Amino acid sequence: MIDTLIKKIEEKKAPIVVGLDPMLGYVPEMLQKKAFEEYGETLEGAAEAIWQFNKGIVDATFDLIPAVKPQVAMYEQFGIPGMVTFKKTVDYCKEKGLVVIGDIKRGDIGSTSAAYAVGHLGKVTVGNSSFSGFDEDFVTVNPYLGTDGVKPFVDVCKEQDKGIFVLVKTSNPSSGEFQDQKVDGTPVYELVARKVVEWGEACMGTKYSNVGCVIGATYPEQGKILRKLMPNTYILVPGYGAQGGTAKDLVDYFNEDGLGAIVNSSRGIIAAYKKEEYAKFGEKNYADASRQAVEDMIADINGVL
Amino acid sequence: MIDTLIKKIEEKKAPIVVGLDPMLGYVPEMLQKKAFEEYGETLEGAAEAIWQFNKGIVDATFDLIPAVKPQVAMYEQFGIPGMVTFKKTVDYCKEKGLVVIGDIKRGDIGSTSAAYAVGHLGKVTVGNSSFSGFDEDFVTVNPYLGTDGVKPFVDVCKEQDKGIFVLVKTSNPSSGEFQDQKVDGTPVYELVARKVVEWGEACMGTKYSNVGCVIGATYPEQGKILRKLMPNTYILVPGYGAQGGTAKDLVDYFNEDGLGAIVNSSRGIIAAYKKEEYAKFGEKNYADASRQAVEDMIADINGVL
Repeated sequence: MIDTLIKKIEEKKAPIVVGLDPMLGYVPEMLQKKAFEEYGETLEGAAEAIWQFNKGIVDATFDLIPAVKPQVAMYEQFGIPGMVTFKKTVDYCKEKGLVVIGDIKRGDIGSTSAAYAVGHLGKVTVGNSSFSGFDEDFVTVNPYLGTDGVKPFVDVCKEQDKGIFVLVKTSNPSSGEFQDQKVDGTPVYELVARKVVEWGEACMGTKYSNVGCVIGATYPEQGKILRKLMPNTYILVPGYGAQGGTAKDLVDYFNEDGLGAIVNSSRGIIAAYKKEEYAKFGEKNYADASRQAVEDMIADINGVL
Repeated sequence: MIDTLIKKIEEKKAPIVVGLDPMLGYVPEMLQKKAFEEYGETLEGAAEAIWQFNKGIVDATFDLIPAVKPQVAMYEQFGIPGMVTFKKTVDYCKEKGLVVIGDIKRGDIGSTSAAYAVGHLGKVTVGNSSFSGFDEDFVTVNPYLGTDGVKPFVDVCKEQDKGIFVLVKTSNPSSGEFQDQKVDGTPVYELVARKVVEWGEACMGTKYSNVGCVIGATYPEQGKILRKLMPNTYILVPGYGAQGGTAKDLVDYFNEDGLGAIVNSSRGIIAAYKKEEYAKFGEKNYADASRQAVEDMIADINGVL
């Protein structure tokens, strides 16, 4: 799957991913009104509003981008109707030819991680048939439980040609609390990075592994060191834009082949119409604002590479 | 919520929790057959079989136990129908007066953790109304992202009188890979434990905090040390039974008041009928086998306290 992702990044000349992390507050009034008229001010109504919002953004941007990254928490908060919208979003993006990175940050003991892996990347067996529960192309994985929490995901990646991004150094302010702690001089995130390389060797694409990692744009010094430590590991980079990471910060996340990283922006793209910069589009044309924000992000990042 | 849990533990004289982590292979043939006849060999069929299986176990054991711990991965693997069964199970257990610990191991950056917290413990706002997505009483939380990944859960706990159990030292064989790494002589899990105490101070019940922790029964030496380090923190203890932890291993997880820990068993209870020990019940009476296994577990644990 990493080869598919790289092919799409090269075709679109866009090492970016759009984070479909909708808050209800991002959804334009007219879409909320229409959904609430049909379903009431209910979980179903909220889920419908978010689905229509997502569809608008995907329709306006899919030709420019290789991938999307729906954040499952934003759907899960609306219960079952929210999860239905998550699934519809995943399926629709795949129909549109996009690679879908499910930002699920799951991770558990072996048999439980296997269930997550099957539910999000593989197929579950029921009697003589098998079914995909959610069917993303990649998912994000939390490494706190160690190898036997990650390996079930790697096994499914091998069987089904899928991929994962393992959290190494996250973008949030307090990520250092445990991740930066030094063990004989080596930070915990680097110990995780070494394991990611080891896990990834069992699941290589042509040049890069199907086991990638997450390193926040907000920690460029660590990104630079980790890039060299793990040359064949693709880096999913959150934290650009709204969280404070700039294009300049991102240069060292890429290899000399111009590959090796894919940069996420969520709020900066999907809620672009709320920013002064794109206010001229107006709420009604929120999707066009997102398209412009995607074009600007691509230019911004390609400008420093 | 911790006070409610403790009250129920004392009433039932049972510091245990039944892990509702159904694999389809645990569900007796007759229940599978009936569900497949109605819904086909589909995700819906599997979800129905699991729901009937859970209901049987809950009906047979609810009067003996204070709490259940459904593992969401086991439902998530069956996609939307699986999540519907998860929700039905949570709601049914609450109707039966049980405390529900959602074993979700979520954790993300601030705004995303807030969405998980709202979806599983709180209420999400839609227009002028608010709704519970899943509505467990407690959830498990992964600490890898640090304070700003955990605090949104604590905030919801305070507002809604709910609780969390933060992963400190997990029960699986490779849990030590990162958790046991020493930082100036102190293992990472102990750094996490200290933060759990700090987070928990903001959210105390009468004696114990609503912010508990997870320490596997399979690491009794660490359990003993951590118990002393965090006297007001309730410990959720997985790993008893099928994973190898014995009652003798559990003594030091409890305080002198006989409280401070709640021990989980999943497979050992819900698939009891498959064990030689309980084979006499037969597949048809799987729920009676589970009841007997619960009684034996309570006696086993109370026997060493």
